[in-house]
Amino acid sequence: MKILAIDSSGLVASVAVVEENNLIAEYTMNYKKTHSQTLLPMLDEVKKMTDLDLTSIDAVAVAAGPGSFTGLRIGSATAKGLGLALGKPIIPVPTVDALAYNLYGTDRIICPIMDARREQVYTGIYHFEATGEYNFAYKLHILEKQCAVSIYEIAEKLNVLCQELGKEVLFLGDGVPVFEERLKELMQVPYSFAPAHMNRQRAASLAVLAAIYYEEGRVETAAEHAPDYLRLSQAERELAEKNGQ
Amino acid sequence: MKILAIDSSGLVASVAVVEENNLIAEYTMNYKKTHSQTLLPMLDEVKKMTDLDLTSIDAVAVAAGPGSFTGLRIGSATAKGLGLALGKPIIPVPTVDALAYNLYGTDRIICPIMDARREQVYTGIYHFEATGEYNFAYKLHILEKQCAVSIYEIAEKLNVLCQELGKEVLFLGDGVPVFEERLKELMQVPYSFAPAHMNRQRAASLAVLAAIYYEEGRVETAAEHAPDYLRLSQAERELAEKNGQ
Repeated sequence: MKILAIDSSGLVASVAVVEENNLIAEYTMNYKKTHSQTLLPMLDEVKKMTDLDLTSIDAVAVAAGPGSFTGLRIGSATAKGLGLALGKPIIPVPTVDALAYNLYGTDRIICPIMDARREQVYTGIYHFEATGEYNFAYKLHILEKQCAVSIYEIAEKLNVLCQELGKEVLFLGDGVPVFEERLKELMQVPYSFAPAHMNRQRAASLAVLAAIYYEEGRVETAAEHAPDYLRLSQAERELAEKNGQ
Repeated sequence: MKILAIDSSGLVASVAVVEENNLIAEYTMNYKKTHSQTLLPMLDEVKKMTDLDLTSIDAVAVAAGPGSFTGLRIGSATAKGLGLALGKPIIPVPTVDALAYNLYGTDRIICPIMDARREQVYTGIYHFEATGEYNFAYKLHILEKQCAVSIYEIAEKLNVLCQELGKEVLFLGDGVPVFEERLKELMQVPYSFAPAHMNRQRAASLAVLAAIYYEEGRVETAAEHAPDYLRLSQAERELAEKNGQ
């Protein structure tokens, strides 16, 4: 199975092509250009360099939210366009799940945190469990589904959970530099921050996790697909307030 | 500190720019083109997309061997050229160390295996140890330095070591598809294979590990740098045989 994956949920733009156990190409950028300037040129570059025939792709995986509203719209619009043109399904992968998948194989509790502004983070709590005996593999388990909460709330949950399980936490995501000092005050269990090669969105992680979600039937048509913002947009919020809701 | 990293030690070509905890760009390709066709165009692409001023780089990290002889020469020649032109030092990172660094944060024993032909693999044995208490980090420890041995020899060493330590093994590298069936017969301790997003060379892992080696003073000038092939080339071997050595 060949998957084209795109992630523009945060500051990072990332494109990858994965076929079975083989990462054919991955291109990731964390630079101040907007995704409308980067994402399609990056895909075009990868397509040219690897002589990629887009019709050979089985599905398009996309970071389906949460994240930057504009970023998600660019990613989803791109995925929908490709899916419609190629007649291929979309595999929508929750952004926070895909971030956790960067840390495949760790024994630690994984807590991705994305800066959601307004004193909140997009986050979740994950761990990997070994399945099988001699020749084993790791399966991602979701202990706390992706959500928008305050940094205090997630730190409190981690303190209780990790004390219970006797586990340390690995943090990653663009929320780390924003909340690092706060976390140092709040954490009562051992913790660590993921290093640069695994601390932000990677389309390759998204693609590998998407292949698993595909097997589980978590697929939609390009027409059906819409990003999951997790929260109301500013305009929707203000309209609701104005209408007294 | 800003590091430009290049890896062309195997089938994969990979370029990355890392500044402190931030992966500015990574471009990785595993496709049948030769590195002389891919590496510099990929670097040029990254340079253009991120408006990278090459003089702002502090050091050039390179996968310094073992690996494909031609691949290593292309990587080293590129690093030397950049280092000389920019007046920047080279950080030579052993290829197998950098591969192990893909799996930062795992509790398992890490065994990268690269197909070295002639019934051998380039391999080594690694694990991560947590350092620090509450706010901890992982340090890569080398249990068996990179070497060229038979798959039987490394499997035997792993069986003894992992039984002793009560640990499982995570394999990665381009030797996995070649020796997977052999390993299934040989391994007497639990083992697993890394998935597509972490099972081949990544210049981002190389860059992050290079920053640590740099701090340890493991730096050379562009003029000094030469790849470490670990074995004699075919021509050298045949000459030695001819001369009766």
